[in-house]
Amino acid sequence: MSSSSSSSSPRLPEIRKDYVFNRYVIISPARSRRPSDFKSSPNPNPKSPNHNSCPFCSGRESECAPEIFRFPKEPPSSSSSSEWNLRVIENLYPALKRDAEPSGSDPGVADGGGVLPGFGFHDVVIETPEHGVRMSDMSAEGVGQVVEAYRERILQLKRVRSVKYVQVFKNHGVSAGASMAHSHSQIMGLPIIPPTVSIRLDSMKELYGRTGKCGLCEARSKDILIDESAHFFSIVPFAASFPFEIWIVPRDHSSFFHDINKEEAVDFGGLLKMMLLKLSKQLNDPPFNFMIHTAPFELPNDQLPYTHWFLQIIPQLGVVGGFEMASGCYINPVFPEDAAKVLSEVNLS
Amino acid sequence: MSSSSSSSSPRLPEIRKDYVFNRYVIISPARSRRPSDFKSSPNPNPKSPNHNSCPFCSGRESECAPEIFRFPKEPPSSSSSSEWNLRVIENLYPALKRDAEPSGSDPGVADGGGVLPGFGFHDVVIETPEHGVRMSDMSAEGVGQVVEAYRERILQLKRVRSVKYVQVFKNHGVSAGASMAHSHSQIMGLPIIPPTVSIRLDSMKELYGRTGKCGLCEARSKDILIDESAHFFSIVPFAASFPFEIWIVPRDHSSFFHDINKEEAVDFGGLLKMMLLKLSKQLNDPPFNFMIHTAPFELPNDQLPYTHWFLQIIPQLGVVGGFEMASGCYINPVFPEDAAKVLSEVNLS
Ligand SMILES: Nc1ncnc2c1ncn2[C@@H]1O[C@H](COP(=O)(O)OP(=O)(O)O[C@H]2O[C@H](CO)[C@@H](O)[C@H](O)[C@H]2O)[C@@H](O)[C@H]1O
Ligand SMILES: Nc1ncnc2c1ncn2[C@@H]1O[C@H](COP(=O)(O)OP(=O)(O)O[C@H]2O[C@H](CO)[C@@H](O)[C@H](O)[C@H]2O)[C@@H](O)[C@H]1O
Repeated sequence: MSSSSSSSSPRLPEIRKDYVFNRYVIISPARSRRPSDFKSSPNPNPKSPNHNSCPFCSGRESECAPEIFRFPKEPPSSSSSSEWNLRVIENLYPALKRDAEPSGSDPGVADGGGVLPGFGFHDVVIETPEHGVRMSDMSAEGVGQVVEAYRERILQLKRVRSVKYVQVFKNHGVSAGASMAHSHSQIMGLPIIPPTVSIRLDSMKELYGRTGKCGLCEARSKDILIDESAHFFSIVPFAASFPFEIWIVPRDHSSFFHDINKEEAVDFGGLLKMMLLKLSKQLNDPPFNFMIHTAPFELPNDQLPYTHWFLQIIPQLGVVGGFEMASGCYINPVFPEDAAKVLSEVNLS
Repeated sequence: MSSSSSSSSPRLPEIRKDYVFNRYVIISPARSRRPSDFKSSPNPNPKSPNHNSCPFCSGRESECAPEIFRFPKEPPSSSSSSEWNLRVIENLYPALKRDAEPSGSDPGVADGGGVLPGFGFHDVVIETPEHGVRMSDMSAEGVGQVVEAYRERILQLKRVRSVKYVQVFKNHGVSAGASMAHSHSQIMGLPIIPPTVSIRLDSMKELYGRTGKCGLCEARSKDILIDESAHFFSIVPFAASFPFEIWIVPRDHSSFFHDINKEEAVDFGGLLKMMLLKLSKQLNDPPFNFMIHTAPFELPNDQLPYTHWFLQIIPQLGVVGGFEMASGCYINPVFPEDAAKVLSEVNLS
């Protein structure tokens, strides 16, 4: 904790309500440096495996858990070859087991004792065959391909009756949880609707009932806007829980991420790549997580008007303490408008 | 991520429902070592300030923000002296401002735009005058005094009309968020009811409506019990989100932490100290957070039967990744029964 290095007195703190996740955040600039001074500490990447022993590198396919599919598509007989741009594989240490599908009428409801079998899918997307390439180094088309792989795998999992929700997420850097340095993301097919998703749907419903509007359609406001593409916009959300948190949101109301088409995927890929590049330049290649917030497969039609998918990027610039863990209320030292201004002005040339 | 080092095949994963916080947890032993092999990595404490420059040390009172009270009690004229066992002081970099109390009928409701003034109290409890003493080194009476300081400060904050909830928490070690090494905790008086508290009250209400029972009164089960004292019991909760997470719970149903009496405070202090000592011995002095989960001041009488305060201790043994941040669902590699067995068997002599 260091005091403000600016001589002008900082803005008074505010408590803001996030109507998407139904939580409060404390925006408190007194607990921090100036927004433009934020930098990540160095060495954010896992030290091992390096490119001499990395099972995600091209040529080491046999050291991985089984492949699910690859781009470009190939006949199964040649799926052991090293010609690929991207692979979706099973996770070698899955948190859930794909061969333990429960029977019964509603497999997604815990029994009286609160226990469900640990059924589910846990996959890894190897985003590039090359060890040193980060997502922010890839082309819009390259990131677009990753987005298409997410969609394709989600559509496969949608066919499994017990899978209710699919969580796509990426860990980059040790303090964001990454154990592998090679650029990858993960896809989990879950037999439950996770707590944050239920809370989000309830909160968006409450907002819609009160205002008649979708909270994400309304989120695009000039002072928090970073950038726009043909089909998407990126903002620092008004009640961001984390400094320099970014949301990428479809311009047109859309409930399901997996409805994205090929052209939109490349457009989205371009904007995602640019946001990651801006974070990397501005904050010194920080560790980060991103996650896709979409709708459960079995969404009743009357919930369509207020569910709107988006991608959330959280750079990891500090440590979460007891206050946040206890209360679910985060202390963000950077006003979202200030973060949006800094990010919109990052020079990428 | 390492595979199980045990040669016997690990238990199948389970999804457990936590009825207190209304969330799921994935218990997945395949993603981990054996329970008894868990250790924290070394060097978990902030490097500076050391005892030569620490403002929390006895003799450096003038380098701190204003004192609120101290034990033993002294006339205000002598409050600058260095004779004390414990001090409660203002935080020098408060997240909320104590001089910005809002007016109006209900100051705890955000306006249409979702903004509230950043009013609130943010205090620090210096738990001991000595730099190197950890809470686990203190006597039951010493920890009991800390507990009494929490209670006394909460009762003071209860008199402020706009304060709706008080969050008590402790950060120990850098990766648990601590910026100061000298043993301390924090108390925040909030003009809102934090998200986790609302969720907890709703969840306990739902459980009570369904079963007629208080979830915490029912939590004491033999296979997850670690220890008991005259007035409290300690468990690894059935649906623990974190490996070796501990809850200390009053045996008799009690909604408000601040109703604790002097004898109970010392009894509680003894059990808390012992749990911290067990974690320290078993896990190699891990970073940890603890937090008190109590009831909002203005609790309607009909909510008393299902609100039950407790203290939660979370040792920080891993990093949270994108899955947890996205879903609110944690992956815990250690079965709570196994953690409880390990902890109940730790030899403290
Ligand atoms: N040869 C191989 N073939 C196939 N798969 C392989 C493999 N070698 C390794 N893997 C898998 O690749 C994945 C790499 O994932 P990440 O580096 O993003 O983080 P990890 O899942 O380890 O944990 C982080 O993310 C999770 C979920 O958020 C958190 O629970 C955790 O605390 C955090 O560290 C691992 O899940 C690993 O099991
Ligand atoms: N001379 C002095 N007089 C009075 N007070 C002084 C002081 N010098 C320092 N302080 C205060 O003492 C407190 C020490 O607190 P901790 O070490 O537990 O963590 P901190 O609050 O910094 O942040 C951690 O906890 C918070 C809340 O959970 C998280 O937001 C954050 O990310 C995490 O690092 C700080 O809040 C600091 O402002």
